[in-house]
Amino acid sequence: MLKLTREIRIEWGHCDPARIVYNPNYYHWMEGGLLELFFAAGHDMAPIMKKDEAFRGTPLVRGDAVFKAPARLGDLIVHHIAISRWGRTSFDVAHHFTLGDTTLLEATQTRVWARAHPDDPNGIIPVEIPENVKAALSSDISIHQSLHQETLHNPV
Amino acid sequence: MLKLTREIRIEWGHCDPARIVYNPNYYHWMEGGLLELFFAAGHDMAPIMKKDEAFRGTPLVRGDAVFKAPARLGDLIVHHIAISRWGRTSFDVAHHFTLGDTTLLEATQTRVWARAHPDDPNGIIPVEIPENVKAALSSDISIHQSLHQETLHNPV
Amino acid sequence: MLKLTREIRIEWGHCDPARIVYNPNYYHWMEGGLLELFFAAGHDMAPIMKKDEAFRGTPLVRGDAVFKAPARLGDLIVHHIAISRWGRTSFDVAHHFTLGDTTLLEATQTRVWARAHPDDPNGIIPVEIPENVKAALSSDISIHQSLHQETLHNPV
Amino acid sequence: MLKLTREIRIEWGHCDPARIVYNPNYYHWMEGGLLELFFAAGHDMAPIMKKDEAFRGTPLVRGDAVFKAPARLGDLIVHHIAISRWGRTSFDVAHHFTLGDTTLLEATQTRVWARAHPDDPNGIIPVEIPENVKAALSSDISIHQSLHQETLHNPV
Repeated sequence: MLKLTREIRIEWGHCDPARIVYNPNYYHWMEGGLLELFFAAGHDMAPIMKKDEAFRGTPLVRGDAVFKAPARLGDLIVHHIAISRWGRTSFDVAHHFTLGDTTLLEATQTRVWARAHPDDPNGIIPVEIPENVKAALSSDISIHQSLHQETLHNPV
Repeated sequence: MLKLTREIRIEWGHCDPARIVYNPNYYHWMEGGLLELFFAAGHDMAPIMKKDEAFRGTPLVRGDAVFKAPARLGDLIVHHIAISRWGRTSFDVAHHFTLGDTTLLEATQTRVWARAHPDDPNGIIPVEIPENVKAALSSDISIHQSLHQETLHNPV
Repeated sequence: MLKLTREIRIEWGHCDPARIVYNPNYYHWMEGGLLELFFAAGHDMAPIMKKDEAFRGTPLVRGDAVFKAPARLGDLIVHHIAISRWGRTSFDVAHHFTLGDTTLLEATQTRVWARAHPDDPNGIIPVEIPENVKAALSSDISIHQSLHQETLHNPV
Repeated sequence: MLKLTREIRIEWGHCDPARIVYNPNYYHWMEGGLLELFFAAGHDMAPIMKKDEAFRGTPLVRGDAVFKAPARLGDLIVHHIAISRWGRTSFDVAHHFTLGDTTLLEATQTRVWARAHPDDPNGIIPVEIPENVKAALSSDISIHQSLHQETLHNPV
């Protein structure tokens, strides 16, 4: 199965008055991480949206999460993400967040492949997941995304 | 048990390119709703924070959610929130979001009453929930918070 | 000119490690407040979006803000919003945020009425603001939106 | 002057129903970018916060922004950030966001170096910016932060 790990720097604005990460940020990162996983597999959502006007993304239908330790300002945490199940119209995603050897969060999500309802453009229905998407995300590789920093002396 | 219901208007910025509510918003509303519940019970977090420098809020330790229907721009949804279990240092919160007769989301959360670790101001530990907080949130009343609108003709 | 004032409760998740409101929240509230102003004038964005597939909202083209005082957890602040200029395709919005007698923030924004580019559905172009929208937002009334709270004893 | 450029991937959750970036995200990125600039200069906010309990960050006191073009789902935009003025207690920050050769946004901010009020821990006052911070951020280097991606074949 395709796996993605990515680094996330904890910013001032991610933290709350207890000076730990405000939990809704993790749910936002789960969305961003899934997008990167699709992107890494060559299935960028943006061109899919452009080609198929009726595509409605992969809305969440169920999720659970266990918060094991807090992250703090300046921490460079790692988000691990992988598809853990393929169904016909739905799939499961496993998310882990770690800081060094410490597990911060373990979560699973069930999502559907969605298109506009044929009779009601505002309605959303789950449809069969394209076989080429499944195949691309089933390849046995790991992708690691890091924040790479390069320093240049300014020309005088 | 004390119950709170509150109206939330779905805004442009709550919605994603599929034109439905972006799911992390619900997790943000669950935080806001819990705060309102404490506030309604006379246990405003703000004075607690001021009186007790070491208080660290009620961090989330576990959560699950089932998304049943999407909400859209302009919808006036209702967030129902109640404490569903009291433990010694932890408690459970039940959240329902509805639009008219439609259930949008059902979620439960386990949270702890937290203070700074006595030996490490950056550490957080669960502590016993104050009895007066439990008592206040166990009163048998329902509170409904609505967006009230009043129109005034401007003086000429 | 139509004016709207609305109450906003400062939540835990609005505050940062300095325990004051994290400034991007104000920009989010300016968006929500404008939507409420249109809504109050009978020009709800949701049905406009449904009727006109090519409508793209009122994107921001310029803004400035002066932050005068911070707001904190539990504060019930007031957001004052009014149209301060009508152009052909653009308009200005004035935003004030207050806490009691204290001004927290003064901001102005220039926005455009936008539709999809006729030759490129991904492009956005400013178009003439509908006369009925201008008329509705030029009426000489003030609307005040408050968080109304009602307490009910639960049936035994 | 120290300059930082960093790549930001536009995610699903950054976009609104017009399928362009929801503008408050830029204000959030300005906060994150400034933090990275301090971090790159060896003045990480996190240890400053730990060492000095009374430090309250660098709150925004004034800002303006011109939005020139929208960004969309999947775009890899670049955030350019530099200090453009040093005062005694305040400083200015210049932000540019670009997509290829296109300028998306130009903004400036005035911020202060803040500590808790000596007589009121909830009050915030501007204080003199430490000389070593000014010196570190005045060095004539450019730092480029990119999303680096590496692919590994999973062991069989």
